[in-house]
Amino acid sequence: MDYNTMCPKYEVTIDIIGKKWTGLIIRVLMGGAKRFKDIKKQIPEMSDRMLTERMKELENVGIVVRHVYPETPVRIEYELTEKGQSLKTVINSIQEWSEQWVGDCQVK
Amino acid sequence: MDYNTMCPKYEVTIDIIGKKWTGLIIRVLMGGAKRFKDIKKQIPEMSDRMLTERMKELENVGIVVRHVYPETPVRIEYELTEKGQSLKTVINSIQEWSEQWVGDCQVK
Repeated sequence: MDYNTMCPKYEVTIDIIGKKWTGLIIRVLMGGAKRFKDIKKQIPEMSDRMLTERMKELENVGIVVRHVYPETPVRIEYELTEKGQSLKTVINSIQEWSEQWVGDCQVK
Repeated sequence: MDYNTMCPKYEVTIDIIGKKWTGLIIRVLMGGAKRFKDIKKQIPEMSDRMLTERMKELENVGIVVRHVYPETPVRIEYELTEKGQSLKTVINSIQEWSEQWVGDCQVK
């Protein structure tokens, strides 16, 4: 294995999935396409501003796609792309390890 | 699922595995117990100071154990604990996703 080339890609991924709320947002979207307010409903502690910011980041890196339906009023839904869906294994493995090994639930 | 209690543990794990070099160090140690200089040899870009710091952090969270053998000169080896070994699935899943989906190898 070439450890030199391994490292940066790993770090890019950690940058993406390691941001506060991102793991949760992706898990919520694994249940299917959702509107902004429905994501919010499942993560009530997160501010609107934060969710907006995270969704833009996830769109920019191709993990989430935004669908605009020209209804009245306009309906906007967010959905995981194939790239986003494939994060399921990653996020679940982090979550499983955390449940087993992280005793203290406080964020450092 | 209780999203409120899920989040902090996930973040604690990300804090641990997301630090620069940590994923690499754990991968190197998956090959078995190693001396400081042998870890260094596999990750030559990392400074001695940085490796010392990371090893202390990994010891503190119970992922690595330090064995001191009273020989002359004294021999010190670092080994993954069971907790550390069980990170294999996590780190491999991050690595596999990165190889598939991260095109740009530059660290942001």
